[in-house]
Parts: sequence; structure tokens; C-alpha cells
Amino acid sequence: MQIDILTLFPEMFTGVLGTSILNKAAEKSAVQYNVVNFRDFADNKHATVDDYPYGGGAGMVLKPQPIFDAVAFLKKKAESKKPRVILLCPQGERYDQRKAEQLAQEEHLIFICGHYEGYDERIRENIVTDEISIGDYVLTGGELGAMVVIDSVVRLLPEVLGNQESHMKDSFSTGLLEHPHYTRPADFRGLKVPEVLLSGNHKLIEEWRNKEALRRTFLRRPDLLDKIELTPDQQKWLSEIKKEYE
Amino acid sequence: MQIDILTLFPEMFTGVLGTSILNKAAEKSAVQYNVVNFRDFADNKHATVDDYPYGGGAGMVLKPQPIFDAVAFLKKKAESKKPRVILLCPQGERYDQRKAEQLAQEEHLIFICGHYEGYDERIRENIVTDEISIGDYVLTGGELGAMVVIDSVVRLLPEVLGNQESHMKDSFSTGLLEHPHYTRPADFRGLKVPEVLLSGNHKLIEEWRNKEALRRTFLRRPDLLDKIELTPDQQKWLSEIKKEYE
Repeated sequence: MQIDILTLFPEMFTGVLGTSILNKAAEKSAVQYNVVNFRDFADNKHATVDDYPYGGGAGMVLKPQPIFDAVAFLKKKAESKKPRVILLCPQGERYDQRKAEQLAQEEHLIFICGHYEGYDERIRENIVTDEISIGDYVLTGGELGAMVVIDSVVRLLPEVLGNQESHMKDSFSTGLLEHPHYTRPADFRGLKVPEVLLSGNHKLIEEWRNKEALRRTFLRRPDLLDKIELTPDQQKWLSEIKKEYE
Repeated sequence: MQIDILTLFPEMFTGVLGTSILNKAAEKSAVQYNVVNFRDFADNKHATVDDYPYGGGAGMVLKPQPIFDAVAFLKKKAESKKPRVILLCPQGERYDQRKAEQLAQEEHLIFICGHYEGYDERIRENIVTDEISIGDYVLTGGELGAMVVIDSVVRLLPEVLGNQESHMKDSFSTGLLEHPHYTRPADFRGLKVPEVLLSGNHKLIEEWRNKEALRRTFLRRPDLLDKIELTPDQQKWLSEIKKEYE
């Protein structure tokens, strides 16, 4: 997968792309990162990338030209037929795991990260294929959003995750929040691990984990329960759990 | 504000904390960052921070000891009475702007970032005050989540944002998505700016912006419309907009 990132702050990406899974993915050639300062594409002598908004008002707006030309250059360079051109912004569709799985199928992603400024609408209308928001909060720029999307997508690419990392049951793949985990010591400064986990009885342990995953989901994210089909056992456990909180 | 970050990958934070608003906030002494590798607090000779889960299963679990001791050390060092101790995890409450505003009132935030591993439940139960999820997607670690929370909180601190940055109307402060923005040129390679924005008629421009903000919110995030009270004008415009899409 080719990942191009357009930003005015390339140095923000160094630590994140150079560490852990994102770095390993590049070492294994599963992905190639290219961080581009789109100021380099500005065709005016002061390398200006933003300007005042038409119609007045405060704040600056990113000009179409540098971003149009940077994206055209990257498309040509990668010889990719249909890159996804992703704009990070609060107006975008809300990002979720389903979207991550979809993007993981692509060959070429181009991320456009604005910073403080708004984007000229012609950028959205003419070159962007996906507007994405990672959540309902205000960030200084699109850079952190791009890193979040890249991390969640790259870890889904074949061969990127080793055994250790992949085995944790992902919360959003089972449809339930994860059950609690415990490790040694069994007694840490008086705080104890639930007996059942020390019992060696795998059937009971599995049942406890299933119930605790249901409990946590019921208490914290009941909306998730509407989205999955529960087994008869899970239905029974869930109604037992509900009774505890009546 | 004192911000401590516990992570096994301190180098991930350098680029982000050293750039733009987050860096300026530190230069202005509005915030102080301290990135700590909690492996340094492991009291075993191999500096092990994780171990196998009780009850079996794949994946590793972060041990309580290094994190308990690191948090105790940081609390004592800052002499802060009630730091918020924030765990980034998919099981947490969903982060939003309201939570950012709440955290911006605090004096001391401690972030705990796991990576691949699960957290021993005793960490959650005994030292964590807030479990936060930045969205319904799976990330490799809590580091990006911590950066997202830090960025959204620090930009709310008094005196951190200058005029230029603060003036953009934030999507989540008006309750509507932002209206489209345009800047020069009025005709970019045949793509034109809406006439009204060039008219100089401020009343019409304001009305157009209001309508387009409503339109975008209606088309992309109708759930947001349920959460705010519309003015009579906005109600009229919204019903006009709805008719266009019937």
C-alpha cells in the first residue's frame, strides 16, 4: 500500500511512523509512507497556501492550487488508477472499524491534513473521495486524524501483525467490549485476581469471560448490544446481569 | 497544567508535542509535558512490564506494579491533590468535546498508554479515574488516543490559541457542521465561487452560510440537529432544505 500524506507539519509524523507496528509494516514493505509538505507545490513566489475567506469572517482558508497540484503529482507518480483521497475534517463521516477494513483493501491512500484553516470547498468537491472525522471533538489539525486512520488501517494489512499483537481479541471484532484481564501476581498488595481465573477450569473461565464482556458492554456501551446477534447462552447471561442492576 | 504520559514508546510523542499549538502552549508555560517510559519503574531485574493472562488465552497483559508505582511517583512529584488518571482503551467512554472542556479545567492529567497488551484490571479499578475511547476503531496502542485528547484539551487552555487559530468557528461549538469556505481565486481552472460570497451583501452572505451549515448537518449528521434548539429562521430554512431532498 502506498500512503501519501499532505501536511504543513511533516515533522509531526516522524515519531509515529517510525515506531512499532507502523515502522515494522514499512520494513516488511507492506506499506510505503511519503510525507509531503504541500507548501512545496504553491505556485506563488511567497509559497502562500492560504488566504482570506470570500464573504468575510475571521480565520484563513486553504487555497485550492497547492493541494490540487500536489494530489495530481502524487497520483501520477504512483501510477495508481483510483487512489482514495481522504480529507480529515469534523464534517466528515464518522470513522469506524468497518471503514478501516474497507480502506485496508486499497492500494493507494492520499491524506490531506489542514491545520487551523478551513479548506476551500472546491478541494472537497473535486479531488476528495472520502471526508473522515475520527470523532466529535475539535483538533488543531488533520494530522492526528491521519495518524489514527493510518494506524488502524495498516495493522489490518496481511502479514503486518505478528502473533503476539494479533491475538488480543479486538473489542470491535466480537461486537462486545473486552472482558477484564489479569496477570501475576494473584495477590498484588492485597488486590486479588478472581478465583475462577486461577481454577484451571476452562469451561468456567470461558463462561466468566463471556459474562464479564456482556456486563461491561451492557454497563458502558449498551448501544453495541443492539448491533449484534446474541447466542442463546449470551441472552440468558445478559438477562441475569440486567437483574443485578435493577 | 501538568501532563504526564506513561508509555513504552516515548519517541512517538516527540514530533507531535514539539510542533504547532502543543509546542507553543509549552513555550508559553500554559502546560508542561513529561513523557515517562513506565518500564523504568519495573521492579524486576529484566524490567518486564507484561505477563501471560490468568485463565489462559493469547496476548499479554500489563502488570500492575510498574504502572501503580509510576503513577504514585508522578502524583507525589507534582504534589497535585486530585490528578485525573486517564486510561486510553476501546472500553472507555466515548470522547467528545464536552469531555475535552471538562478536562481543560484540571491541573494535572496523567495518561496511561498500553500497547498491544491488555491492562490488568486492578489498574483500572484502583488508580484510573477516566477510561476514554476516542472512537470505535482498533488502534495499536493508547499513544495516538493520548495525543488526540491532549491536543483537544490544550487548545482550550486560556491564552494558548492566538487570534488566527481561534477564530474559525468550531464545528462542535455551534452545534452544526461548518458551512463551506472559499478563498481566491474566484475562478480556479473553471471552478467558481458561489456568486453570493462575492456580492458584498453581508446579510445575504450570513443567510447563505447559515443555510449551508444546516444543509450539511442535515445531509451528513442529522443526529446533531436533535441536540440543539433552532431559531425560527433556522427552522424555516431547514424545512426548505428538506423539501429539496424529498
